[in-house]
Amino acid sequence: MRIAQLQTHVWDDPDRCLAGAEEVLSALDGQRPDLVCLGEMFACPYETSAFPRLAQPTGGPTWRRLSAMAAEHHVILSAGTVPEVDADGHVYNTAYVFGPDGSQLARFRKMHLFDVDIPGGQRFRESDTLTAGDQVVTFDTGLCRMGVCVCFDCRFPELVRLMALRGAQVILVPAAFNLSTGPAHWELLHRSNALAAQCFVVATSVARDMRASYHAWGHSMVVSPWGQVLAEAAEGPCAQVVDVDLGEVARARQALPTLCARRSDVYDLRELPRG
Amino acid sequence: MRIAQLQTHVWDDPDRCLAGAEEVLSALDGQRPDLVCLGEMFACPYETSAFPRLAQPTGGPTWRRLSAMAAEHHVILSAGTVPEVDADGHVYNTAYVFGPDGSQLARFRKMHLFDVDIPGGQRFRESDTLTAGDQVVTFDTGLCRMGVCVCFDCRFPELVRLMALRGAQVILVPAAFNLSTGPAHWELLHRSNALAAQCFVVATSVARDMRASYHAWGHSMVVSPWGQVLAEAAEGPCAQVVDVDLGEVARARQALPTLCARRSDVYDLRELPRG
Repeated sequence: MRIAQLQTHVWDDPDRCLAGAEEVLSALDGQRPDLVCLGEMFACPYETSAFPRLAQPTGGPTWRRLSAMAAEHHVILSAGTVPEVDADGHVYNTAYVFGPDGSQLARFRKMHLFDVDIPGGQRFRESDTLTAGDQVVTFDTGLCRMGVCVCFDCRFPELVRLMALRGAQVILVPAAFNLSTGPAHWELLHRSNALAAQCFVVATSVARDMRASYHAWGHSMVVSPWGQVLAEAAEGPCAQVVDVDLGEVARARQALPTLCARRSDVYDLRELPRG
Repeated sequence: MRIAQLQTHVWDDPDRCLAGAEEVLSALDGQRPDLVCLGEMFACPYETSAFPRLAQPTGGPTWRRLSAMAAEHHVILSAGTVPEVDADGHVYNTAYVFGPDGSQLARFRKMHLFDVDIPGGQRFRESDTLTAGDQVVTFDTGLCRMGVCVCFDCRFPELVRLMALRGAQVILVPAAFNLSTGPAHWELLHRSNALAAQCFVVATSVARDMRASYHAWGHSMVVSPWGQVLAEAAEGPCAQVVDVDLGEVARARQALPTLCARRSDVYDLRELPRG
């Protein structure tokens, strides 16, 4: 499976962001990627006030443009995240994934909102304008089963483990860590989640822009089910292409049977029924 | 809190191992450690045949000697692990912890047995001679609440998270990784568990001995609740003394509220009733 991560610049203008992503993707056509990934809020400034202002419904103009992008380039498109508004006016930090025919394979709404206050470092309160999702999401593609979560979600091993137990072999993490949490935890979390789930982790950030109000860490990376970093970008805009062997998932699970050796007689981890 | 990790050589003779630990501990008396830690099977060759041969009951001669060691030096003693046999003849890989008065504060029996077969690397089957424990263990000391697990257990985020939810601020991990898993995962797991539990992790290995049948990784380490390695030993016999500020636990939990931000309405992680 060939993965292309597009670590793009976030302009104030969503159309310009989308056009930029399309341009990079077109330039990659010759390399025939199977899976193309964008970062968190790749077409929206990472500011709580911008989320409701730029939010669109599922099926809206941005959604259709992303669907068309997947179909035109015949790729699985993990379209980073975009602000989504539902019929009740709730706004979500939403990750869509489209198949090579343009159909929506998955919609995941960020489940753990980023409300932090690090002394001397990052402060942010997504919950000022966003509503949290409540669904674990895994889905089948023509290549393997995948799971998806967004940025802060990756700090919650329960969610990561549940995706693995549902059969995910690849976990997509559109994200935008910052200059406090990035150097401390970005690589650590993606490596440990890959190992805990014995999955590939594809963590895609937006590019860093020191003129923006939020300074993203960048460093998009792909990690193997053994916890090895297979590729890591720098912080600027770039496209990173990585080939992975999905057979590594089964080999890692055979060598270290930490999914089937769980003590389900001692502890229980489960999704709760909704509604 | 001052921690002393004793990364000791494992002789074939348990008495010699115990005498060696006592000697190192006596040499540290002037430094007044609060918590002293030994490695996994520090007084028993790490061989499945040795476990039943050298196993003793709780309260037996080795247990009494370890209890006396804690009392004599007035320390909390995480006495690595020893092979323990129960009244039914089951043998466990057991971590005892003693208080400064020599009383037993905790007994944890390794819950996830090390049964692995890494192509071109380590093979081992603890379950050939060992029985797995079935209890999550946390306990109070005069300094803070602690949890304890053993080596392979640290690959199971459910257990780590449960210890944190029970209020542990320090997680003790007597261990003996090897030359396959050590370089790949030793630091990664202890750092990610410290971050997931927002606890200090004190991971203590036995020393490496290339003449033994099992080659331990060594590299005893202490990790902060922010996931930073505060100290890391090399592979040979040594005593490592580390001062930690337990206030860091509360500060990490305040900065990144990943324990109280769990989505307990979406997923449930719990201990099951026993028996």
